[in-house]
Amino acid sequence: MVTGTVVVGLDIGGTSTRALAVTLDGERLGTGRSGGGNPTSHGANRAAGELRAALRQALTDVDPSRVRAGAIGLAGAGRLLADPAGRAVFDDAWRAAGLRCPYAVHGDALVAYASGTHSPTGTVLVAGTGAIAAQVRELRLARVADGHGWLLGDVGSGFWLGHQAVRRLLAALDAGGDPGDLGRRVLTELTGSAEVAARPRDTVDALVQTVTRRPPVELARLAPLVVSAAGTAEPVAAGLIAEAAGHLISSTSRVRPPGDASPLVLGGGLLTGQTLLAAAVHAEARQCWPDAPIRAAGDGAAAAAWLAARDLPEVTDPAALHARLVPAT
Amino acid sequence: MVTGTVVVGLDIGGTSTRALAVTLDGERLGTGRSGGGNPTSHGANRAAGELRAALRQALTDVDPSRVRAGAIGLAGAGRLLADPAGRAVFDDAWRAAGLRCPYAVHGDALVAYASGTHSPTGTVLVAGTGAIAAQVRELRLARVADGHGWLLGDVGSGFWLGHQAVRRLLAALDAGGDPGDLGRRVLTELTGSAEVAARPRDTVDALVQTVTRRPPVELARLAPLVVSAAGTAEPVAAGLIAEAAGHLISSTSRVRPPGDASPLVLGGGLLTGQTLLAAAVHAEARQCWPDAPIRAAGDGAAAAAWLAARDLPEVTDPAALHARLVPAT
Repeated sequence: MVTGTVVVGLDIGGTSTRALAVTLDGERLGTGRSGGGNPTSHGANRAAGELRAALRQALTDVDPSRVRAGAIGLAGAGRLLADPAGRAVFDDAWRAAGLRCPYAVHGDALVAYASGTHSPTGTVLVAGTGAIAAQVRELRLARVADGHGWLLGDVGSGFWLGHQAVRRLLAALDAGGDPGDLGRRVLTELTGSAEVAARPRDTVDALVQTVTRRPPVELARLAPLVVSAAGTAEPVAAGLIAEAAGHLISSTSRVRPPGDASPLVLGGGLLTGQTLLAAAVHAEARQCWPDAPIRAAGDGAAAAAWLAARDLPEVTDPAALHARLVPAT
Repeated sequence: MVTGTVVVGLDIGGTSTRALAVTLDGERLGTGRSGGGNPTSHGANRAAGELRAALRQALTDVDPSRVRAGAIGLAGAGRLLADPAGRAVFDDAWRAAGLRCPYAVHGDALVAYASGTHSPTGTVLVAGTGAIAAQVRELRLARVADGHGWLLGDVGSGFWLGHQAVRRLLAALDAGGDPGDLGRRVLTELTGSAEVAARPRDTVDALVQTVTRRPPVELARLAPLVVSAAGTAEPVAAGLIAEAAGHLISSTSRVRPPGDASPLVLGGGLLTGQTLLAAAVHAEARQCWPDAPIRAAGDGAAAAAWLAARDLPEVTDPAALHARLVPAT
């Protein structure tokens, strides 16, 4: 057993939950991983169950009484905190892991931000299934743009890319034109065949019915088709990627003044890989904010651990602590 | 009791169902009106129930054995015809009214078209809750543009106007700006107050939650706010109306060549009133198709009756019959 102060960080996402127990020296004592647990989509009980599973793994070799602080990052944090029942479920899971220290709950955007920089002031842009941009001041979300969900916003997100790809395909079919390479990929994904019926309207009807039978947010599953088609210079896909980048930068500009030199952190599945969209957003951001460091979001659990640790009295240099706790991306 | 050939027409819409029994001379023997019965949204049983109620009223003073032909216009006609169970429910309702003649089922777009012109060839553009444009050949829908539903299309429709109005409001709130006159009307409609919270994000969250708790298609209920605000030159509303008109003309252009001189019929709640949107669409259509007669859709039940009657052997001049059966708008 190790001695010295330990902190715990958790990142609860839509597809996985990660936990980390780490000393203030940066020694990683344990990690845990469990299933997706976004409380907005799956409910607080499911989220708390995944939290418990990931925590148990991370604390296998750690005396829980040594854990002095904890933080949890998750989408919809505000709604969870506003709901006493949801909060109680999280409290129970925390205590069931043997933890007696307090813990904080942060939005996923703040945790993504902190995974890319130690600066208390800056901006974060996240694009995955949804999309949100936020100004960060004193490590709190100050102004926020978008994050309005697929029905009203998430412009430039994975949902948006998939939705637009289907709309472009429908417009091409209506006009009696060729569906194009991206269109054929979308057709195959949704109907099992790249063929257009003799009456194109039959294909249109089949597409509309297939999409409307499923939860709308599943349109985000088509985003990888758009990203990969753009990689082969497919013109419709390339256009959508450029448009998405423009929308994401426009949301960011709504909360970040021109020329701002504070860090800009890019997070979410669409912006952390080596994709054309990430490259396009990076290039546009470089033009708008030439003096700003632009960072990719990294390890959310480590960032949450850092957010938990930095308020401890023995922490005098949060920037140095960030360098020890959060792996550079 | 009147003698001579009688035909029956029905127009089953989302908000009301209308029936008409009329002689080939144009003598209106009976009309009926009942509740909305769109089978796509309400199911075939509900639609057939409204059909029966409207038919019973229209046939009060008519011997049903004198009815020689009938036609029913409704949204989602294709889906109804493809479903033997739905078709059987309609057959039962037809026979329950004492009718022994055959009847045809037409899409609402074709009936809207026939309510504005007797020409077998032309184009119809309908904008209400949804939006669709179609080329008509030999009184059948040939090519169709949009009509893809709120999730994937209906661009320029009532849904689109309401949806855009909320999105513009959210963008204004994100940017810390004034919501504007239209924004305040939308806020009041959705939250009961035109006030923006001290933290505008709280108002954003309240709006998003209010909208996402309801069926998305209810966003169409905000369309009248946009239309009326545009009437007072509110700039956001005026911009949305211009954009909607552009989208509707663009959908129409997808199925109608430039310079086409065949009739263009404008239908649906947004295009048949004296609204700014109707005026904008009319003006743009006049530019694209300067030689085309542009007509407003009229009495759908009468148009359905005409569609039923025109194939009867005693009808030698369908255009003259149209003039007798379908009131000019």
